[in-house]
Amino acid sequence: MDLIARVAKNFEDSAQTKLNAVDMMAAPIAAAIETMTNCLINGGKILACGNGGSAGDSQHFAAELIGRFEAERQELAAIALTTDSSILTAIGNDYSFNQIFSKQVRGLGHSGDILLAISTSGNSGNIIEAIKAAHEHDMHVIALTGKGGGQIGEMLRDADIHLCVPADRTARIQETHLLVIHCLCDGIDALLLGVE
Amino acid sequence: MDLIARVAKNFEDSAQTKLNAVDMMAAPIAAAIETMTNCLINGGKILACGNGGSAGDSQHFAAELIGRFEAERQELAAIALTTDSSILTAIGNDYSFNQIFSKQVRGLGHSGDILLAISTSGNSGNIIEAIKAAHEHDMHVIALTGKGGGQIGEMLRDADIHLCVPADRTARIQETHLLVIHCLCDGIDALLLGVE
Ligand SMILES: O=P(O)(O)OC[C@@H](O)[C@H]1O[C@H](O)[C@@H](O)[C@@H](O)[C@@H]1O
Ligand SMILES: O=P(O)(O)OC[C@@H](O)[C@H]1O[C@H](O)[C@@H](O)[C@@H](O)[C@@H]1O
Repeated sequence: MDLIARVAKNFEDSAQTKLNAVDMMAAPIAAAIETMTNCLINGGKILACGNGGSAGDSQHFAAELIGRFEAERQELAAIALTTDSSILTAIGNDYSFNQIFSKQVRGLGHSGDILLAISTSGNSGNIIEAIKAAHEHDMHVIALTGKGGGQIGEMLRDADIHLCVPADRTARIQETHLLVIHCLCDGIDALLLGVE
Repeated sequence: MDLIARVAKNFEDSAQTKLNAVDMMAAPIAAAIETMTNCLINGGKILACGNGGSAGDSQHFAAELIGRFEAERQELAAIALTTDSSILTAIGNDYSFNQIFSKQVRGLGHSGDILLAISTSGNSGNIIEAIKAAHEHDMHVIALTGKGGGQIGEMLRDADIHLCVPADRTARIQETHLLVIHCLCDGIDALLLGVE
């Protein structure tokens, strides 16, 4: 097998996925930056969730907000719902795996907070339940999806924001999700600190 | 501020970083795929570590190997050293933050295992200590870095593999690291399962 050519093809596809996505995604990402910044300025917080690679993305986002992205600034309120294995296993065991995030949203979420919901398929049951819980609590949802958006795309409300990567391969969608998360962090810092 | 143009610039830079990197990185990534696959076939395991976004990458990699990437196959032996908050806080508190990974490498690592060490700067103290511990235990190191590779680039041995992203901005390097991790998973699956 020509492994080098196989790797090179993945690199080219990854670059092309971003170039294909930019026209469709730049405006809703800009809107998400403004919604998140307003939430944080008004004392709200951002709860993030996802499965597998998207759990890593949730934690990456919370780390950049609580710690730092590129510039020094005040700590910003973000919580990844993917990290407390005591909570995750207790809810998974006592209720169901579909409720591991929604019960945390009910316990931690308030009106004016944001749920950052990450699912490449748009169809993961625990993310769908988390979005329902966020809506119950009058939170805005910012959804990162792919593959057309799945069920999540259909359940979002007008005040929510859908950031759907126009791609079908999970790996390429995840790579673009990480770029979107960096754009969110970069834009929030730019609005809070001004542009250098 | 023109947030839309700012987002679009990040997308273009991210795509360009990958196109700039592919010629330099494809061959060493292919070598890393072969090294990892041989390690796994021979009963070895892969320990992964990183800080912040790179902790997320470590966990993403372990999730794809223990769970699945794209195809169904046997579970593969990978452990992220970034997840056990009891271990991390105990070692950080009792010894030092620089030893949070190295002590796990000493406890878990054997000759023939691989350390996947992830640092965008190549200079994080706990990753440097982890690499020293891996060398003590006769493990191969596969290092994902950027910004020229830093101190990590200088301490690698001939049998190690250095995957250095030719870029200077942490976010762009992390996005390329995630792509590299997907190339590793894709290549391991292709070698283990054959190409469809
Ligand atoms: O469709 P999603 O909500 O993105 O969920 C996918 C995840 O459960 C994980 O599935 C597999 O394990 C892999 O594709 C992972 O990368 C993915 O995060
Ligand atoms: O130089 P590294 O080993 O990649 O370490 C960087 C990390 O500690 C984190 O630093 C900041 O918090 C951010 O840039 C994170 O994205 C990064 O992972």
